[in-house]
Amino acid sequence: MTAAIVTPVRRLVVCGAGLIGGSFALALKAAGLVERVVGIGRTRASLERARELGVVDEIALDWPTALAGADVVLLAMPVGQSNDVMAAMAPHLAAETLVTDAGSTKRDVIEAIYAHLDGHLGQVVPAHPIAGAEKSGADAAFATLYRGRNVVVTPLPENDPAAVQRIRALWEACGATVREMSPQDHDRVFAAVSHLPHLLAFGLVHDLAGRANAEQLFSFAASGFRDFTRIAGSHPEMWRDICLANRHALLAELDQYLGELAYLRALLMSGDGDRLETLFGEAREARNRWAEKTFPS
Amino acid sequence: MTAAIVTPVRRLVVCGAGLIGGSFALALKAAGLVERVVGIGRTRASLERARELGVVDEIALDWPTALAGADVVLLAMPVGQSNDVMAAMAPHLAAETLVTDAGSTKRDVIEAIYAHLDGHLGQVVPAHPIAGAEKSGADAAFATLYRGRNVVVTPLPENDPAAVQRIRALWEACGATVREMSPQDHDRVFAAVSHLPHLLAFGLVHDLAGRANAEQLFSFAASGFRDFTRIAGSHPEMWRDICLANRHALLAELDQYLGELAYLRALLMSGDGDRLETLFGEAREARNRWAEKTFPS
Repeated sequence: MTAAIVTPVRRLVVCGAGLIGGSFALALKAAGLVERVVGIGRTRASLERARELGVVDEIALDWPTALAGADVVLLAMPVGQSNDVMAAMAPHLAAETLVTDAGSTKRDVIEAIYAHLDGHLGQVVPAHPIAGAEKSGADAAFATLYRGRNVVVTPLPENDPAAVQRIRALWEACGATVREMSPQDHDRVFAAVSHLPHLLAFGLVHDLAGRANAEQLFSFAASGFRDFTRIAGSHPEMWRDICLANRHALLAELDQYLGELAYLRALLMSGDGDRLETLFGEAREARNRWAEKTFPS
Repeated sequence: MTAAIVTPVRRLVVCGAGLIGGSFALALKAAGLVERVVGIGRTRASLERARELGVVDEIALDWPTALAGADVVLLAMPVGQSNDVMAAMAPHLAAETLVTDAGSTKRDVIEAIYAHLDGHLGQVVPAHPIAGAEKSGADAAFATLYRGRNVVVTPLPENDPAAVQRIRALWEACGATVREMSPQDHDRVFAAVSHLPHLLAFGLVHDLAGRANAEQLFSFAASGFRDFTRIAGSHPEMWRDICLANRHALLAELDQYLGELAYLRALLMSGDGDRLETLFGEAREARNRWAEKTFPS
């Protein structure tokens, strides 16, 4: 285990003490790697709840208070707030304070970093923990959320290697596997395997819920529908921000998928059972091979 | 419980002793409502396996043998075989033998009934048990599959009410809730809540699996992707048949959904965060309301 050689964080600031930020705090607490967690965010009630639950130890109502003596800051609010948050914290950020984030998109977060934290580029390490989040808030946070999960780190060229190493080590102490990639690759990959499926699931439920016979339709939906639409239970603001931040890659994926649907439509129109069966068979094989490897039972 | 007043089946013939047919047999056995189960189907090895597992008691290699003395026949093979199977069984079917099916589509099955079993219309009751089936085969069958599930019965105008009642009672004895609807409504409803989601999931996995960077993409896919694509692990032949049999309703649903995607695409293009968030919020609310009611934890 690498946890033994990680220097504990004396003062961790979590901006957005919800599922993602809260679980990071709880995981570091469980690993004995943080002395004090400070929560900051938009909503006083959410912060109070996080303190009640022991997710954070104290609440800060402004950045000067939060950042005084902070050695690590995790930005875990919806990515649409990156510019506002970074602009607000920048004047109070000490040179030695390490900053990282948990945003589901990376190019937009990095743009905000260059815009607002350009005096701190050695110490600001962008990252993205890949953890399911259809529940949200401090109540949903738990210490083992990141165990066995991937965390993607997309270091800046300006990053101090020691800063990158420290962020990696903290995530590894949470039980995660850290993988590095470029922000461009990150945003393209997650447009395909995460952002597009969310869009498709939101769209299907929205489509059906608006029908005159919506109640009848839902009354016959079963477990396949439940699983297919689970991600349509995700946080609307978070997903609005992700879709907007990554819209170029997401549009490219959507268009590629519309091409696939046009092909399927043509097979249905012409009643081409052979090609349908082949396509379904290839999908089944790829899906089951992946699932057996990734989620061994 | 209604089970107490159901007359036991002396000889049940199951055509296709897989997940669906096998689980029906096991459920009736568990309820003490069947004396002998006979399996018939295309593949000798599958039937042998079903007998080994105790899902069927005996194997029939031809219809005259299977149907001799049968009081109930369940057709549980892929719907694309309806015509062939009904044509083969018709000459050997006794007037008093009750026939039902488990097809996921109803209009095509009913067409086959009128084409091949028109001398038996009083005794042939179309039905569809709504039970997840991404695993298949006798090995996947279990006695409680139908507990708490819906079974849709779409009676023919010619059906003897006693025949409909008996089929209902047998499914209720398996623990299912029986609901009646017209075959037209059935096929439209399931195109929306089942067939389209299957097509979308197969299509997404097929699209990604064909990419040059497929391995990279899958290596970052997580639990959201796993659940969204679970139904892409379904049986390719079964789903080919369903898609072809119900292609008019499925095309109508696909086109409606393509309209929804065109709307989402426009919102992404114009960066309309407000409308995206509203749409996601409506979908989340509808999905969670449905899921909490349907799958109380």
